[in-house]
Amino acid sequence: MNISVFEVTVPQFILSLQALKQVLSKGKAMADQKKMTASELFQSRLAPDQFPLGRQMQITCDVAKFCASRLTGETAPSFEDKEATYEDFQARIDKTIDYLRQFKAEQFVGYEKRKVTFPWYPNNYLDGHNYLVQHAIPNFYFHLTTAYSILRHLGTDLGKADYLGNQSWKPDSN
Amino acid sequence: MNISVFEVTVPQFILSLQALKQVLSKGKAMADQKKMTASELFQSRLAPDQFPLGRQMQITCDVAKFCASRLTGETAPSFEDKEATYEDFQARIDKTIDYLRQFKAEQFVGYEKRKVTFPWYPNNYLDGHNYLVQHAIPNFYFHLTTAYSILRHLGTDLGKADYLGNQSWKPDSN
Repeated sequence: MNISVFEVTVPQFILSLQALKQVLSKGKAMADQKKMTASELFQSRLAPDQFPLGRQMQITCDVAKFCASRLTGETAPSFEDKEATYEDFQARIDKTIDYLRQFKAEQFVGYEKRKVTFPWYPNNYLDGHNYLVQHAIPNFYFHLTTAYSILRHLGTDLGKADYLGNQSWKPDSN
Repeated sequence: MNISVFEVTVPQFILSLQALKQVLSKGKAMADQKKMTASELFQSRLAPDQFPLGRQMQITCDVAKFCASRLTGETAPSFEDKEATYEDFQARIDKTIDYLRQFKAEQFVGYEKRKVTFPWYPNNYLDGHNYLVQHAIPNFYFHLTTAYSILRHLGTDLGKADYLGNQSWKPDSN
């Protein structure tokens, strides 16, 4: 009745980031067809006070990166938020996937005891367990879904299967 | 380095559904201010071919309900999708929370071996592990985020804290 913390994070974040690459690729096709510039595309948003597509994708990458580093005591590499083109964003996702691929299940021993703090909420912390369940996982899917929704709102040909990516279906012989 | 399957699902789904109740309450205030009818509110959507707000909330509830029932071998109660008013939707969320509250951690023993099938994909299944990680968790947050995004897109006064809900922050004495 237990599951490895590694399994609910690292390989699944990689699977979802690979799905995001495909979602973004479909978004690029939509933008080309509508003759939107890269700037128009990546600055698109659902509400005036919400982050635009480009920032949503950067945060999706960072939530995955920091979840793995914070729960293992590693120091995550810093990525400058300078992406401007389609190729830049695909490379950002690839860099994040490459970083995640270095982690092993054993590194998550003691994850529950780690204190996770944020500069925007001084003198408070989430323990590793609550950070994982209440913060990192919900945030990862929040930004992934919002990126998807911005592209779908713009008219990109997307469905749920694009968001979920390559699930491990097996043939049922029954 | 392991976490209880119960802990990544049941209490967190309850926490998120309680957050959804508050998000919906803010959406109601926005709708009242703009003199939107309940039908206009719950039929709002981000793309013409995507489910509207009402359906997004129903599915959020159902993903949580079925995740718990499928991984434990229980039979989930059937909820008719007839909600039309603000009170109806709050009651649907409450019914789902009440159902989730009946589960205990021990019921998830053997979760990984359960076969999860869907009528829309015959002759294929996801094992319990992959259903949990690749399907149920991403889908739950997909529909929760989409409900939030529809309301934010309509001008509801919402921020990330409303989505995340009541996290277990602790004071840091260091």
